[in-house]
Amino acid sequence: MTITSIISDSKPDLQPYEELYKELHQNPGLSLQEHFAAETAAKYLRELDGFEVRTNIGGTGLIGILKNGEGKTVLLRADIDALPVEELTGLPYASKKKEVDVEDGNEYSVMHACGHDMHITSMLAAAKTLHSSQKDWKGTLVILFQPNEERAGGAKAMIADGLYDPKKHACPIPDAVLGQHVMPLASGTVGTRVGSFASAADSFRVTVYGRGGHASQPHMTIDPVVLAAHIIVRLQTVVSREVNPREAAVVTVGSIISGRTENIISSEATLKINVRTVTPETRKAVLSAIKRIVKAECEASNSPKEPLWEPTSSFPFTINDEEVTNTVAAAFAKHFGDQHDSESPPLGGSEDFSILATEAPNKNGGKGVPYTYWNFGGVDPKKYKDALEKGTMSDIPINHSAYFAPVIQPTLSTGVDALVVAALAFLT
Amino acid sequence: MTITSIISDSKPDLQPYEELYKELHQNPGLSLQEHFAAETAAKYLRELDGFEVRTNIGGTGLIGILKNGEGKTVLLRADIDALPVEELTGLPYASKKKEVDVEDGNEYSVMHACGHDMHITSMLAAAKTLHSSQKDWKGTLVILFQPNEERAGGAKAMIADGLYDPKKHACPIPDAVLGQHVMPLASGTVGTRVGSFASAADSFRVTVYGRGGHASQPHMTIDPVVLAAHIIVRLQTVVSREVNPREAAVVTVGSIISGRTENIISSEATLKINVRTVTPETRKAVLSAIKRIVKAECEASNSPKEPLWEPTSSFPFTINDEEVTNTVAAAFAKHFGDQHDSESPPLGGSEDFSILATEAPNKNGGKGVPYTYWNFGGVDPKKYKDALEKGTMSDIPINHSAYFAPVIQPTLSTGVDALVVAALAFLT
Amino acid sequence: MTITSIISDSKPDLQPYEELYKELHQNPGLSLQEHFAAETAAKYLRELDGFEVRTNIGGTGLIGILKNGEGKTVLLRADIDALPVEELTGLPYASKKKEVDVEDGNEYSVMHACGHDMHITSMLAAAKTLHSSQKDWKGTLVILFQPNEERAGGAKAMIADGLYDPKKHACPIPDAVLGQHVMPLASGTVGTRVGSFASAADSFRVTVYGRGGHASQPHMTIDPVVLAAHIIVRLQTVVSREVNPREAAVVTVGSIISGRTENIISSEATLKINVRTVTPETRKAVLSAIKRIVKAECEASNSPKEPLWEPTSSFPFTINDEEVTNTVAAAFAKHFGDQHDSESPPLGGSEDFSILATEAPNKNGGKGVPYTYWNFGGVDPKKYKDALEKGTMSDIPINHSAYFAPVIQPTLSTGVDALVVAALAFLT
Amino acid sequence: MTITSIISDSKPDLQPYEELYKELHQNPGLSLQEHFAAETAAKYLRELDGFEVRTNIGGTGLIGILKNGEGKTVLLRADIDALPVEELTGLPYASKKKEVDVEDGNEYSVMHACGHDMHITSMLAAAKTLHSSQKDWKGTLVILFQPNEERAGGAKAMIADGLYDPKKHACPIPDAVLGQHVMPLASGTVGTRVGSFASAADSFRVTVYGRGGHASQPHMTIDPVVLAAHIIVRLQTVVSREVNPREAAVVTVGSIISGRTENIISSEATLKINVRTVTPETRKAVLSAIKRIVKAECEASNSPKEPLWEPTSSFPFTINDEEVTNTVAAAFAKHFGDQHDSESPPLGGSEDFSILATEAPNKNGGKGVPYTYWNFGGVDPKKYKDALEKGTMSDIPINHSAYFAPVIQPTLSTGVDALVVAALAFLT
Repeated sequence: MTITSIISDSKPDLQPYEELYKELHQNPGLSLQEHFAAETAAKYLRELDGFEVRTNIGGTGLIGILKNGEGKTVLLRADIDALPVEELTGLPYASKKKEVDVEDGNEYSVMHACGHDMHITSMLAAAKTLHSSQKDWKGTLVILFQPNEERAGGAKAMIADGLYDPKKHACPIPDAVLGQHVMPLASGTVGTRVGSFASAADSFRVTVYGRGGHASQPHMTIDPVVLAAHIIVRLQTVVSREVNPREAAVVTVGSIISGRTENIISSEATLKINVRTVTPETRKAVLSAIKRIVKAECEASNSPKEPLWEPTSSFPFTINDEEVTNTVAAAFAKHFGDQHDSESPPLGGSEDFSILATEAPNKNGGKGVPYTYWNFGGVDPKKYKDALEKGTMSDIPINHSAYFAPVIQPTLSTGVDALVVAALAFLT
Repeated sequence: MTITSIISDSKPDLQPYEELYKELHQNPGLSLQEHFAAETAAKYLRELDGFEVRTNIGGTGLIGILKNGEGKTVLLRADIDALPVEELTGLPYASKKKEVDVEDGNEYSVMHACGHDMHITSMLAAAKTLHSSQKDWKGTLVILFQPNEERAGGAKAMIADGLYDPKKHACPIPDAVLGQHVMPLASGTVGTRVGSFASAADSFRVTVYGRGGHASQPHMTIDPVVLAAHIIVRLQTVVSREVNPREAAVVTVGSIISGRTENIISSEATLKINVRTVTPETRKAVLSAIKRIVKAECEASNSPKEPLWEPTSSFPFTINDEEVTNTVAAAFAKHFGDQHDSESPPLGGSEDFSILATEAPNKNGGKGVPYTYWNFGGVDPKKYKDALEKGTMSDIPINHSAYFAPVIQPTLSTGVDALVVAALAFLT
Repeated sequence: MTITSIISDSKPDLQPYEELYKELHQNPGLSLQEHFAAETAAKYLRELDGFEVRTNIGGTGLIGILKNGEGKTVLLRADIDALPVEELTGLPYASKKKEVDVEDGNEYSVMHACGHDMHITSMLAAAKTLHSSQKDWKGTLVILFQPNEERAGGAKAMIADGLYDPKKHACPIPDAVLGQHVMPLASGTVGTRVGSFASAADSFRVTVYGRGGHASQPHMTIDPVVLAAHIIVRLQTVVSREVNPREAAVVTVGSIISGRTENIISSEATLKINVRTVTPETRKAVLSAIKRIVKAECEASNSPKEPLWEPTSSFPFTINDEEVTNTVAAAFAKHFGDQHDSESPPLGGSEDFSILATEAPNKNGGKGVPYTYWNFGGVDPKKYKDALEKGTMSDIPINHSAYFAPVIQPTLSTGVDALVVAALAFLT
Repeated sequence: MTITSIISDSKPDLQPYEELYKELHQNPGLSLQEHFAAETAAKYLRELDGFEVRTNIGGTGLIGILKNGEGKTVLLRADIDALPVEELTGLPYASKKKEVDVEDGNEYSVMHACGHDMHITSMLAAAKTLHSSQKDWKGTLVILFQPNEERAGGAKAMIADGLYDPKKHACPIPDAVLGQHVMPLASGTVGTRVGSFASAADSFRVTVYGRGGHASQPHMTIDPVVLAAHIIVRLQTVVSREVNPREAAVVTVGSIISGRTENIISSEATLKINVRTVTPETRKAVLSAIKRIVKAECEASNSPKEPLWEPTSSFPFTINDEEVTNTVAAAFAKHFGDQHDSESPPLGGSEDFSILATEAPNKNGGKGVPYTYWNFGGVDPKKYKDALEKGTMSDIPINHSAYFAPVIQPTLSTGVDALVVAALAFLT
């Protein structure tokens, strides 16, 4: 029996899942506050006989385990947190949620601007499909919902809380760890790739110091706004002059805050910096260049105090295992035909997904099991084609945009199929 | 009878006023929220028989009028608002006040970081002195407490509310409008100057627009942080290259805010800009250069939208009248001897004080009566001398600093005397 | 008979060619002034019976044609010009040449800093080898020496002068156009690659205008030095923010000249900009961004005059033909074994080589015959290995450096073999 | 007899001097190469009986001494060098001179763009007038022609060469040193001022170091063009943020040169910086800030080598003596009436004139005799008035501009009178 036939037999009506998607979309939870998503996921899994559900792993993380005879163990992972973005999609089911961030105490508008709600919904319908088709496969299935992906903390926290520890949450050790992300590609398509699939991402907060005073007396002060501006400008040279043009790297200053009012020169400025690299050598060189530049610009301003560096998150490299990826790709090719691209461009962003694999104990007594991560499209296929032809791709909202909104179908259906096909590639 | 003798006879014991100063210092009110100061001032004036007190003029503004026979009319003005600064003086009477700003809805630490508490206290003791010495002078005395000086709104608001309107608050038209400011000069000294004494100050908030997105995909975005940084850097050339080196001008970006988190590129940035100039030609040229630069930098970034300009405050030029200033200076010379400097350097900052004079109706059926504004020192004289000698003047906290704290004496006594001497220069 | 055996039989003693290399190295000619190189090449070719030599094609360009029976036609190309660089290698045969550039009239030190002397010498020894082995192959061989590669003018000039025109220089139409470049890779190795092998390069001179005046009176002037500096700084954002991080692009301001003396503000500044891109879309976007930024910065400075754009050179993309490249690669694999890398990294620089192929008339009545371009190493293999291991690759001088100096052997021998092997891959 | 009558009696017909002016204008000499001017001046002085002429003092410097009985000694000074500016005035007598600079070996167009030709001509006609009127005054007159003012070397060189040394050139010690400069003010007017009349000017050449390479390989290089641009941009903050807004200071980067061609990244950049200040404290602070910034920016770029600082010139402060200035001003008031302004704005530029006074031995065995320096206008009075009224003063060419061209009359006549009046103020 082919995987496609299994899906055809066992996949539930997706109409209720579309409603679930909208409900999740309207109830986003910031990183570390994904209570609604976690409770919803647990409830759905518990409704499926045979799933053993374990919750509160590394915060709101949870797993459902379905043991279905001898065979391989596959772990499917979905991330569940939302972002501090004010939704501007104008959709009837747009989020109006506001939430106080547990980390900084400020209130934010919250939005599933990265599509994790689509990940959760796809995963729940995939779990249902695999549950209904147990006669057609053998092995162990682990469904994992991971919190706090956006701040690169969730995977680490689940590991640290004993996800695989036989004495704690005792998650079965997977033979393959699988995950997916909805992207601004044509809905209905999926993309795989062997090797580097996502960059490492290092984030930190840097506070630089001036000396405050009256806006009319700059010579009595050291102006942190001017200092910060020169740092931002100078940092552009890291990518433009110090990185091999044939290699990808990004240095983004996502946030700059200094001063409150126009007639007072403040005494400090805070920059939030995000760095993306695809090789360890470049990562090291870029981080070192950033430190060198910040330090030197502080000296140029005669800053009275060393800058303060506070790392805020660190995403690993995502490098898809050749064998596991090829297995998934072959199954995708059969099921999706030419809607599958085995040379998909890497993700723009970064992921902490790989930690769930690289930190898993393996049979050699060491750490690390193979993994692959793929993407699936969320853009209306006609719109996507038009944009390609007209050269207006930049008008299509990307992840983290206030306008990011996958079309529900065929996105959801594709996301469900992809999870099921990939799991069954190992379990049949 | 000399003015010095009058003061010697009528000046009250300042001990209770020192306590009042501390109480005011611990109860600062942000601009537009100076309720405690206004109520205190009104209470004190009402305790002095003969003062007619009119309150709630242009907000919390108030005047006390003392008619004492035929003669000139003199208006003495004190400003009463505090600043959103967190006090770091460590003084026993340091402010711990927090207040929600009525303008932006945020909560701030509040501090009398510009010495207006000293202005209020000096004024109340001066009112008491002049009240006690009525037998020694003739004319009309107006004591005016003005709110919202820091945001350049109070003087305008009092005028707009009919300060001089016979049918509204009917303040007697002054022959001279007088005011003073405590500065980081040696306590015990006073300084006058004919002509330009304070710069004009124009403030505005500028919002510039980018296109938001994911930190890893800069090419899909227009980065407002990079745009804002280039604006700040470029604005430095206005003063360095476009203003006559022999003329004073300041362009300060007091605040820059863009983005919240490191992994999202924001869609806009907000700059708060403050401009100081001393001549109308330069004012015009500098404001025009700023607009030109902001516009061009938006174009350099391919910004999708025109920048938004929002004026936030506008202080006039302060140009001391020659005759009135010389009258005050002559009286100061007699009373203060070599503690008086008739060639005092201009204020660093700006003032809306002059509006109370330039908007007053005059005898010609037009507007504008003469005024003068002077300063008095607040720094311990020994510390001041040491700093001068050691070249460490930059260690002395200036107005608006979190460390700004006049020594109570002889600052208070000098402030009282200066007001009384200046008033009596016209009334005796 | 294998190609390797043919070489073994017919390759001349390279000792005299090593001397020739040194002689060429000491007599470099700037672009458009390659007289010594061209005369030397013509003399050597003429000494080989059967070669028909045609000179003065598009300046100092020349070809030698050897017809050797029925078969394919192969064109081997070497470039021959040197650079305005003052040699710092300290070699006994270092160049001390100075030459007045015919283009700008200035005198420069001249150096073969890009290894074209090695290209010429390899080509002459390869011509000798192929000449000696005529019994072992069939077809037509064209040896082409091209001037003015560095300024992207030579290939265009040879075409424009009628290289392939039957009524002008009547070069036989090649079935494959072949060329090579010595690079800072291990000497003894060769590298091929299908597809994009060198970026396009667009160069232009931009003059921006200010208003001159006295250094003490900046406000009476528009400072072109400050304008140019802001342009250079702002241009960094093109690569750092506007180009897809996964794609290669370079924007280099190679030269900035403004003003002569410190006490005069000049009235203009001249920037020389070089742009490298690997796709037509990025090329268009980058060139457009540069123009946008220069224009906007001129506006920010209130420049009195539109900037002047003068294109100075334009290198095409170099995209190696799949079939021709694979043919050469297969022959290299046999001859060079593991010293051949079929996934060689692309060149850092750009080439006008491809024009000799894309502008050749083809059998369909259109233009364009297939081509491939490869590299060969010039760094002492032991030094190269050490640098790799110690992470000191950046100490190895690259092309255009004043320290660039291939080791003569085995570089020369490898360059000769590569040309012969590649030609015979089509002719045997 | 009034000074005005003396002039009226003794002043020569200026027609031949107008021709002389044009001849000088067409034969400008760069600093250190003022041969034509010096020879012309010597020839004219020698034609006046009684003048003792001493030449070749500190290069092309010279003096003429006229002893005319007991009395004071007055030294009148004119500077004589021209500038490397290409004249664009379009005047019939415009300079077409080109000259190889002895300092840098480059050829420049040369122009009297600072009006020193007018200084020379005025001085020669003044010498003639004073020579003709010897019966009307008593004392010693020294006429001094000083070379190399533009590079601040001439006054120092004349002193160093023993100008006042009794054993060398034995110039009589002056009671007053007097000089003048033609400025873009209304022709016919003269301006004096007690106190600070010209800023100090410090110039230096700074070379900063990168690492050269190919334009396509920025990551293998350290780009000196980008480094230099960031230095220039950062230096703007010295004036905009570090200097008291009420005080004058200028930091001009008059020249930036790096790289020759677009496709090579150079290994160094050279900046020529000029600094103007009016107080010793600010001078020290500004020079120190510049060094701090250059050093820090080199560190930000990871520059391999400390920057090289080479002082090129240093102009002193020019501070007009109160008594001498008042003497001259009183005489000017009588002769010029309301064409004299005793509160003239200071010069924009700097002067080494004062060294001729501050380095002269005085009666107390120390150094320093009093001096005053004044200006006279060179702009057609009607044009000047129009420009003032229309606000188009910035269209009037200033000193060092390629368009600078005083109207010959009444400029020359005023320059002659001013020198004669000032001298006679001490000698009658």
